[in-house]
Amino acid sequence: MNPKTKVKRVPKRGHYDKETIYRILDQEFFCQVGFVHEGYPVVIPTGFGRHEDWLYVHGSTASRMIKDMSQGIDVCITVTKVTGIVLAKSAFHHSMNYESAVVFGKGELITDEVEKDFALKVISDHIIKGRWEEAREPNAKELKGTAVIKVPISEASAKIRTGGPVDDKADEPLPIWAGVVQIDQVYSIPDEYLSQKEELPASVKPFMT
Amino acid sequence: MNPKTKVKRVPKRGHYDKETIYRILDQEFFCQVGFVHEGYPVVIPTGFGRHEDWLYVHGSTASRMIKDMSQGIDVCITVTKVTGIVLAKSAFHHSMNYESAVVFGKGELITDEVEKDFALKVISDHIIKGRWEEAREPNAKELKGTAVIKVPISEASAKIRTGGPVDDKADEPLPIWAGVVQIDQVYSIPDEYLSQKEELPASVKPFMT
Repeated sequence: MNPKTKVKRVPKRGHYDKETIYRILDQEFFCQVGFVHEGYPVVIPTGFGRHEDWLYVHGSTASRMIKDMSQGIDVCITVTKVTGIVLAKSAFHHSMNYESAVVFGKGELITDEVEKDFALKVISDHIIKGRWEEAREPNAKELKGTAVIKVPISEASAKIRTGGPVDDKADEPLPIWAGVVQIDQVYSIPDEYLSQKEELPASVKPFMT
Repeated sequence: MNPKTKVKRVPKRGHYDKETIYRILDQEFFCQVGFVHEGYPVVIPTGFGRHEDWLYVHGSTASRMIKDMSQGIDVCITVTKVTGIVLAKSAFHHSMNYESAVVFGKGELITDEVEKDFALKVISDHIIKGRWEEAREPNAKELKGTAVIKVPISEASAKIRTGGPVDDKADEPLPIWAGVVQIDQVYSIPDEYLSQKEELPASVKPFMT
């Protein structure tokens, strides 16, 4: 923990242990990458992977994000899962339940081919475990057009809010409903993809409802 | 459209019309605010609201994001909804279905009390329509501790991917399952909040499953 990552607002919601931060990073496969381009901030949503203390993102070698990240610039990567809307009796104490992780590090282009192949598998596994082995592997042309950036998780913090509304004592007698609207992500396979001659692969079965 | 907002990768997924961009902004209540703090990029997840060509975010007057945004600095606000994982026969053509909007503008602190009150209602309505009128309104002390920033949607773009995998012709005969894992957000009210003496308010009823 240092001044950059310290959770300044509602410090009791801040977490700095690896276990918590990595759990939040691993439960989502989508992140937001922030970087500075010609002096102004840019935030780009993209898929990602994690292995040990590294985050990996990939993209076309022609993408602005990849080109900028290849220069070793500072990046800020956030992962957020919103799990509920919290309704208090007072407008002021309305809130959200969420888990978020914020990672600071410098991007670095992976140039070693073995490391690049490993990183692509990490990203694939992070999004859908086991799919890498099922799919046709990248050929030389595809690999040439794809760049992979690694970002060391050098500084990171997490912020978590759970539970119901917390109202002021003075508001408790007010006849106003207070509670939580819970938000869940539900996975399914649309029917149109269930009638192929190929059997549903192992990687996809966990998403069947 | 200008060089800052032009979707450079897969240009056919880019959209620049207000209708599309505002629809994406309005379907989510959570955004990521990117800004430059002491030279490095910071991305912070937070709730937001939109009215006409303005985005509104609020926070404690003590928050770093709010303090920085009050200085009129450049910000980049993104809103993303991921709707599916797209599995192709080749690893290379795996993708995601999503809708995202990226807005560039300069933050501005709202100092007028009437405008601030209006903006807080816009944020509240954006998150849960009608709740503002049900809840106990903010008092002077709460308003004093809350800052609201407006950001004009001066430049924006959207990116959308929908549909199934698109494989190379040469891969079509491969005996590999390809399809989509669909992701839906499901809202519900946990039982523990359904047994109050206060009746479920109108704002919350749409979230009942």
